[in-house]
Amino acid sequence: MENNLVIGIDIGGTNTKFGIVNSSGEVLQRGSIKTKNHPEVDTFIDELYLAVLPSIEFAGGIDMIKGIGIGAPNGNYYKGTIEHAPNLEWKGIIPMAAMIREKFSLPTFLTNDANAAAIGEMIYGVAKGMKDFILITLGTGVGSGIVCNGKMVYGHDGFAGELGHTIIIPDGRYHPGTGLHGSLEMYASATGVAMTAKEILLARPDSTSLLRDYKEEEITSRVVYECAMKNDVISKEVYNYTGKILGRALANFAMFSSPEAIILFGGLIKAGDLIFTPTIQAFENNLIPIYKNKIKIIPSKLFDSDAAILGASALVWDQD
Amino acid sequence: MENNLVIGIDIGGTNTKFGIVNSSGEVLQRGSIKTKNHPEVDTFIDELYLAVLPSIEFAGGIDMIKGIGIGAPNGNYYKGTIEHAPNLEWKGIIPMAAMIREKFSLPTFLTNDANAAAIGEMIYGVAKGMKDFILITLGTGVGSGIVCNGKMVYGHDGFAGELGHTIIIPDGRYHPGTGLHGSLEMYASATGVAMTAKEILLARPDSTSLLRDYKEEEITSRVVYECAMKNDVISKEVYNYTGKILGRALANFAMFSSPEAIILFGGLIKAGDLIFTPTIQAFENNLIPIYKNKIKIIPSKLFDSDAAILGASALVWDQD
Repeated sequence: MENNLVIGIDIGGTNTKFGIVNSSGEVLQRGSIKTKNHPEVDTFIDELYLAVLPSIEFAGGIDMIKGIGIGAPNGNYYKGTIEHAPNLEWKGIIPMAAMIREKFSLPTFLTNDANAAAIGEMIYGVAKGMKDFILITLGTGVGSGIVCNGKMVYGHDGFAGELGHTIIIPDGRYHPGTGLHGSLEMYASATGVAMTAKEILLARPDSTSLLRDYKEEEITSRVVYECAMKNDVISKEVYNYTGKILGRALANFAMFSSPEAIILFGGLIKAGDLIFTPTIQAFENNLIPIYKNKIKIIPSKLFDSDAAILGASALVWDQD
Repeated sequence: MENNLVIGIDIGGTNTKFGIVNSSGEVLQRGSIKTKNHPEVDTFIDELYLAVLPSIEFAGGIDMIKGIGIGAPNGNYYKGTIEHAPNLEWKGIIPMAAMIREKFSLPTFLTNDANAAAIGEMIYGVAKGMKDFILITLGTGVGSGIVCNGKMVYGHDGFAGELGHTIIIPDGRYHPGTGLHGSLEMYASATGVAMTAKEILLARPDSTSLLRDYKEEEITSRVVYECAMKNDVISKEVYNYTGKILGRALANFAMFSSPEAIILFGGLIKAGDLIFTPTIQAFENNLIPIYKNKIKIIPSKLFDSDAAILGASALVWDQD
């Protein structure tokens, strides 16, 4: 069968991962190159091409490939560009989709990582068959991908869905990257979890906690997770606080687009009930009656090392 | 030309207005009946039919009419129902679209008032040609209609777009209708403006203000407007405060769907620059760079007594 495979490429600050994916979401071939080795985008494209080529041959040649999907930070779907991505070395506006399209002679589509994850859920994951849902990525930062009426919401300019930057606590924590105060990202990200832990430790000098065995700079969201798993009261309180803020933000998002589900994706959801329980409680408490008890808050199904490749690859199927 | 007219019906708590509208948005015939006179919905439908009939005859008969659009509080587009509308006498779930469709033998569509207003702007008003915009109604309450990818966002259940109920100040003013604290509606509505005025007067017992000529219960958003027009400092501060909160909320909405424009509609926008200037300033201040200086905040063009009828009627054209 011709044309039934797609290539997914996930461009990250350190590594760029790629894979050949079939329509069931199986990654048949995978590989990666170091993004960081290429201060110039041209040599990046050259190395990427050489790295992907054997996988294309293995798959039966270029005629077997329907197209290429790319997930990238600050990716613009309409223009196929990466624009001013703070964690990439390439400055300004990079016409990445056009460059890849030319090099590979394949239809090529690009969007940001969180949108790619949302499309991945819609094509292969828990959002299969859903027409209205929101995906929130809870990683180093907080990103989002929104689907309404069965279509990705890209907005007027291709940059829709920056829910991590919405203000959830006016005059709250300062975000050094944006200059704004109180953005969701400063609370519901790995960074935010570590900050919350330090704040609580400081506010309760007399309380005991496993977290006190660590130096301040050693307290990360992973450490909080490990301590919470050992039943540390303050670490569990960190999750309660995080869930309370996150749930309230999700309620605001739900009253925007009335989704069937909100899908949580990324490192934070490893904590399972520790984060889901307070999040769902705050979510329900902040909804008006017409929305109560009908919007699911569920973990991503693509939550593993292939998720980013799958998300990017799904962009190609989403063109149909 | 057959089939080039539509009927718009706006169901309100006190009055129900209707009109025959052409594709340019001209209301050719109009009329109204008292919603309040009908504790039973059946007699309401009967009176409405009798009231609209002469307009249909005047328009050249039923064959000239393409369909009926209805705007109603708590209207559900998918089901054509009015569900638990607090300001209507009919309790529970009313299958209004089906009842009107049967009575008039015409295709009939129903949505809530704010969605109808958004469709009105898209078909006849300032949003003509826009594919991504948000309309916010600033009246007794705060409502919204959202268009993404050229389509109304109804959400999974038909109830999307309750942005007036999003929490903008955690633990802020109590909303007696929803039990939530800090909803946008408690600040950016007529009610909210009056509350803000009273709060400022109380907080500054020594300041002079024209507002002090009124008893507390006499201070309404209209009084604040009149005093602001007479250059009353505290009244102008009320608008600054309202704009600051509203602008921040609009920034959150913009980071959701990245619209081309946000359209403001309703009583509050009569204040013109008094409300637009602080709103736009707070809006821009709370956006991340990729959104700055490119999203318009503009007043509705349908802001007159026909707006609700036009919005409802536009639902029919939007089916094409």
